[in-house]
Amino acid sequence: MLDAIIGVGRDKASGGYRRFAWNDADMLLREWFVGEAAERCMEVVEDGNGNQLAWWGTGDDALLLGSHLDSVPDGGAFDGPLGVASSFAAIDRLRAEGFVPSRPVVVASFADEEGARFGIACAGSQLAAGVLEPARALAQRDREGLTLAEVLVDRGRDPRAVGRADWMADIGTFVELHVEQGRSLVHSDSPVGVASAIWPHGRWRLDFCGEANHAGATEMADRRDPMLAYAATVLAAREIATEADARATFGRLEVEPGGTNAIPSRVRAWLDARAADEGALDRLVETLVARAAAAAQADGTTVELTQESHSPAVQFAPALRDQLATLLDAPVLPTGAGHDAGVLSAHVPTAMLFVRNPTGISHSPQEWASEADCVAGVRALVSVVKDLA
Amino acid sequence: MLDAIIGVGRDKASGGYRRFAWNDADMLLREWFVGEAAERCMEVVEDGNGNQLAWWGTGDDALLLGSHLDSVPDGGAFDGPLGVASSFAAIDRLRAEGFVPSRPVVVASFADEEGARFGIACAGSQLAAGVLEPARALAQRDREGLTLAEVLVDRGRDPRAVGRADWMADIGTFVELHVEQGRSLVHSDSPVGVASAIWPHGRWRLDFCGEANHAGATEMADRRDPMLAYAATVLAAREIATEADARATFGRLEVEPGGTNAIPSRVRAWLDARAADEGALDRLVETLVARAAAAAQADGTTVELTQESHSPAVQFAPALRDQLATLLDAPVLPTGAGHDAGVLSAHVPTAMLFVRNPTGISHSPQEWASEADCVAGVRALVSVVKDLA
Repeated sequence: MLDAIIGVGRDKASGGYRRFAWNDADMLLREWFVGEAAERCMEVVEDGNGNQLAWWGTGDDALLLGSHLDSVPDGGAFDGPLGVASSFAAIDRLRAEGFVPSRPVVVASFADEEGARFGIACAGSQLAAGVLEPARALAQRDREGLTLAEVLVDRGRDPRAVGRADWMADIGTFVELHVEQGRSLVHSDSPVGVASAIWPHGRWRLDFCGEANHAGATEMADRRDPMLAYAATVLAAREIATEADARATFGRLEVEPGGTNAIPSRVRAWLDARAADEGALDRLVETLVARAAAAAQADGTTVELTQESHSPAVQFAPALRDQLATLLDAPVLPTGAGHDAGVLSAHVPTAMLFVRNPTGISHSPQEWASEADCVAGVRALVSVVKDLA
Repeated sequence: MLDAIIGVGRDKASGGYRRFAWNDADMLLREWFVGEAAERCMEVVEDGNGNQLAWWGTGDDALLLGSHLDSVPDGGAFDGPLGVASSFAAIDRLRAEGFVPSRPVVVASFADEEGARFGIACAGSQLAAGVLEPARALAQRDREGLTLAEVLVDRGRDPRAVGRADWMADIGTFVELHVEQGRSLVHSDSPVGVASAIWPHGRWRLDFCGEANHAGATEMADRRDPMLAYAATVLAAREIATEADARATFGRLEVEPGGTNAIPSRVRAWLDARAADEGALDRLVETLVARAAAAAQADGTTVELTQESHSPAVQFAPALRDQLATLLDAPVLPTGAGHDAGVLSAHVPTAMLFVRNPTGISHSPQEWASEADCVAGVRALVSVVKDLA
């Protein structure tokens, strides 16, 4: 099923995907979702946030499956789409077996899970759940300076419809299947696992500011070059995160003015930080910012911190987790990655299934799952639906 | 005169200029140049490289004045345009005084001096002088992936006309006036100075390569993050350049894939390095690359070095330099910045005049020269033309 969309939003040079909220690739994937649902006579509802839901049956206390279709820049083919496609495939098997669910079964494709375009991860599920302010989301700008509100209008959507979604009240349970983003299942020799928790996670923007000047005519001693404090902060982040057994990453950067022969006036860097609990995450960021400020001060530059997002620690519903682990005879594991399941778990009993990734690599074209393991994932979803619906 | 173009190519947010070779702002400046020449009944010739020359008189052994109109990203209003406008203003004064030159006087605006778009500084003068291969220049790509050849066709120019220019044979002397990119003239309390030399200068691209992965799910110890070796190299560059009394700058950077929650697969950084002589420059870059390679190896990443340009050391014609310094009673000073005058000095006797910049800052909107000092620069050009033509 994923073969049908293998070319959508794929960059020829890198082999990675560029499926960002509301871009051309994302629009094609929305059509693909509608088509898959139509083939199965499932009614599709798109809420005001762009989340798509395909319904098998009607009513409340529904069992929600699915994941998302968007990607990080140069992402892989599995992160997101595997969960959506596996959900449709599970429904095909259940129907072929003549299974009739006792509650509605719904396949979701959540909008803008990665936050690659507007900077807020899980924006679609957060808006639907009412935990992200519509005004804040609508004002977010992409790299071209367009707001989400402008982009929605351009795509024929109504920005006033963004916000808490009615369908949330009709969901009784959510089970998201996702490719593993690590090698725990490789080590435990299991094709499928069940999630225990998601680490708390935040994104911060660091603005290192100095003074633009000529790269040839300005003596080293006369410079106020913000790139130096940025570099010191990158090295400090590795040291601090390693020591704390946490994670800190600088993967996105903007340099102004950005000329080879100009000392930068500003280096804007985004920090992604995660740790096993909130206290550890706070300590990590505090220590790092103190190191950044000290480095900047020594150079006559400055650094300013802005928190762009925070995803609190998530403990998935223990009873459901244990029920599925027993049902599937699957290991239980935590993850450092955020998911729509993490957002919804505060509102409905939620579980996650992971499918083994032999490379352990994700957010990259090297992300992978074998056909046999993908089938095992579909079988697991079939068992889950039989058990829960 | 500069007031007429103060708005051209100016970014509203930064106040800086974005006048890059053949972009819309550059095209407007080309029209402005043609208009200024027409007002003075000077014939404009544009050579195959886009260099514009306005002729007062005909024949050979011409005295060439002028500079360039393009800018670095978010550059200032003076770097380049001051030399072009001052040359026209000097001609106005000479004509008002009834001066009749004994040789042609020419005002030039050189194409793509900053190399901001295609990566090669002084591309226009280098092509005209025959020291840059047309094929290499035509194949350079801008950030959108367009080659210079494609851009020339789009602007109605003929890529086959790029290369050594006939007018070079008719030039006897070149004097370029430029805003100072430092504070030497502030310290010596002089409005105008004469250049002695330009330091050798090179641009290198450093490709730091690792492995893209998930910022949340990948343990610090399992990463091959190329940002770390980049950061170590930035700090090493400051240390090495300071010790060697040289200059090393990282002002341009591209991060792939560039997502906040993705460990980079590649960090592509551009090094601008300059030193008092070729030996010192070679040692600087060798030492830096060794440090970069060691840092990369320790992280399981790699770094690859590509030299993108090299501008050899320039000693301006000593007799002309001394003649002008005496004529203008002006101090003599070296510079770390490259100029079209540096390119032409290998072919014709060449001198440079600097106009005082109170901030010492250049390649930034804070670049400045007082009106009185600008007038002093025009007066100096008037004296030079009277003396040499």
